Amino acid sequence: MNKTKRLGSQTVKFENPPSIISEYSIAGKKENEGKLKGRFDKTVDDAMFGEKSWEKAESKLMKSALHGVIAKSGIDENDINYIFAGDLLNQCSGSHYAVRGFKIPFFGLYGACSTMAESLSLAAMSIDGEFARYALASTSSHFCSAEKQFRFPLEYGGQRTPTAQWTVTGSGAILLGRHDKPPYITHVTTGKIVDMGIKDANNMGAAMAPAAADAVTAHFEDTGFLPSDYDLIVTGDLGYVGSELFNRLMKENGFDTEHVHNDCGCMIFYEKEQDVHSGGSGCGCSAVTLCSSILKDIRNKKLNNVLFVATGALLSRSSPLQGESIPCIAHCVKITSAEVAE
Amino acid sequence: MNKTKRLGSQTVKFENPPSIISEYSIAGKKENEGKLKGRFDKTVDDAMFGEKSWEKAESKLMKSALHGVIAKSGIDENDINYIFAGDLLNQCSGSHYAVRGFKIPFFGLYGACSTMAESLSLAAMSIDGEFARYALASTSSHFCSAEKQFRFPLEYGGQRTPTAQWTVTGSGAILLGRHDKPPYITHVTTGKIVDMGIKDANNMGAAMAPAAADAVTAHFEDTGFLPSDYDLIVTGDLGYVGSELFNRLMKENGFDTEHVHNDCGCMIFYEKEQDVHSGGSGCGCSAVTLCSSILKDIRNKKLNNVLFVATGALLSRSSPLQGESIPCIAHCVKITSAEVAE
Repeated sequence: MNKTKRLGSQTVKFENPPSIISEYSIAGKKENEGKLKGRFDKTVDDAMFGEKSWEKAESKLMKSALHGVIAKSGIDENDINYIFAGDLLNQCSGSHYAVRGFKIPFFGLYGACSTMAESLSLAAMSIDGEFARYALASTSSHFCSAEKQFRFPLEYGGQRTPTAQWTVTGSGAILLGRHDKPPYITHVTTGKIVDMGIKDANNMGAAMAPAAADAVTAHFEDTGFLPSDYDLIVTGDLGYVGSELFNRLMKENGFDTEHVHNDCGCMIFYEKEQDVHSGGSGCGCSAVTLCSSILKDIRNKKLNNVLFVATGALLSRSSPLQGESIPCIAHCVKITSAEVAE
Repeated sequence: MNKTKRLGSQTVKFENPPSIISEYSIAGKKENEGKLKGRFDKTVDDAMFGEKSWEKAESKLMKSALHGVIAKSGIDENDINYIFAGDLLNQCSGSHYAVRGFKIPFFGLYGACSTMAESLSLAAMSIDGEFARYALASTSSHFCSAEKQFRFPLEYGGQRTPTAQWTVTGSGAILLGRHDKPPYITHVTTGKIVDMGIKDANNMGAAMAPAAADAVTAHFEDTGFLPSDYDLIVTGDLGYVGSELFNRLMKENGFDTEHVHNDCGCMIFYEKEQDVHSGGSGCGCSAVTLCSSILKDIRNKKLNNVLFVATGALLSRSSPLQGESIPCIAHCVKITSAEVAE
């Protein structure tokens, strides 16, 4: 076996780095009143998006993102070999109804809010492994469908704790392919499940921070990269509470990330003015932040090397009620604006 | 791009076919009273498996299967590069609590009852693509956790319709790797979502049969194989109702599969004596049937070429209540007992 693709225990380095051909973001009204105002490809003011349920609205968000990213790319839908997608809804039904109309082979994923990095990792592997010429990665979330499913009926008007995060309404989609233009995905570091025993489902940032630190530390150890090799190490979505913890854990691991770190949950909303407490969350948060803002900054060379680290809290609605703690995961994807020799 | 790995629109042919190093099955009491009695690696008479909830019991089934398959293989856990796994529980919590104790990078999947084929496909791609030397594929289901989540409280004693299937309690796990011994996985055909408008969540076999026929037809068209190239084309889990429909659809597509077709949902239970109506179902059904019976028959050359076609109904608990039909998918994995030149 040619071992050159594996670095250390969790990382692969691509021999033929897949190119990000196009990206597309669609987001809700509140998202477009935040820090990324005007950067989304499309915004939708109606939380129902013309549908009869929030679940259907969420599906329509992803469907629009998939159609949008294909249209932007100019690639024929028939030439796309795989869709990798998932979401937060029970049985990932958001993705299934979104993907239903496409005649493209589909791999369904569940990685909670790590899904954008998981789908990018697998889509990139499918291309570098020569299984695909073009592959789509996507995820979505919706504030109302998530609140209804994970917390309380919206009508109840429950008080949110200070550590709670606000689920982003939106979807992002990325088309990867063999192409001779940056941005490229050059490395992926796949996370292990980390569970430090946190049981508070209203403090996901604290639960996920150790998983993020574990994955980013593995990335540095496997590749030999240092925080200074990056313009931006962007987690999603630890929020304010989790981000502080992440940087503290990284320092304990010997890596000072604070000056290059940001978090999608902190990049999307004005925390005080928009009353989002610890920041944004949901699969859609890191997806739309990546697709609306980060990738644009990579394309125009404001950013050159980015480590995208989507983080997921892998609990269910019932597992904390059964006394379980929250298993978490994070996956790292290195995206570069540099030319990469094939 | 070296295009030789892709055949047609949905299939890849591996250049270095991954070997099935070991497989492990664990199943419940009712399963061990059925047609596969005595063939499981382990059986558990207690539906709670010593735990305090059915969900925790299901997790423990998968955890046992993962430990079991690693122990059987003789491979060091630290040498395993990925786990690909998923289950039916909301947010796939069965898998997450099962995988939590392993220090192995994890990709979470949701493919409903297609998960065993989805996880095998991606694990095989990770090895052929040289991203992994060893990779695990696993899934589970549990009758009680599935009934509770998808249908009625067990205590209610609801009547089951004649087309209903019985969710298997069990888990299967397979370790793939670079090895010089059969069985090998040589081809995977990845399914598209097919939705023929069926809305009856008690007739999943009929909903899934068109997806299975679509994927198997694509497999034949992409590869040039014919039904006569196989000793067994095994769907899972269409049950009796769906199997009949599958063979009829295949005939319409020009392929006579009836004489080589069987279905994991029909292979596991005695339908009348065990009162399972249209047969077994659940992610665990095709997983334990493959791991307890089919792979053993391939190892002892009773079977030489098998097309394993796990099928999934991608509905959620709420989507049919919102008037939605059932999107379905099926993935094909070719397993052979023949020696394959590297």
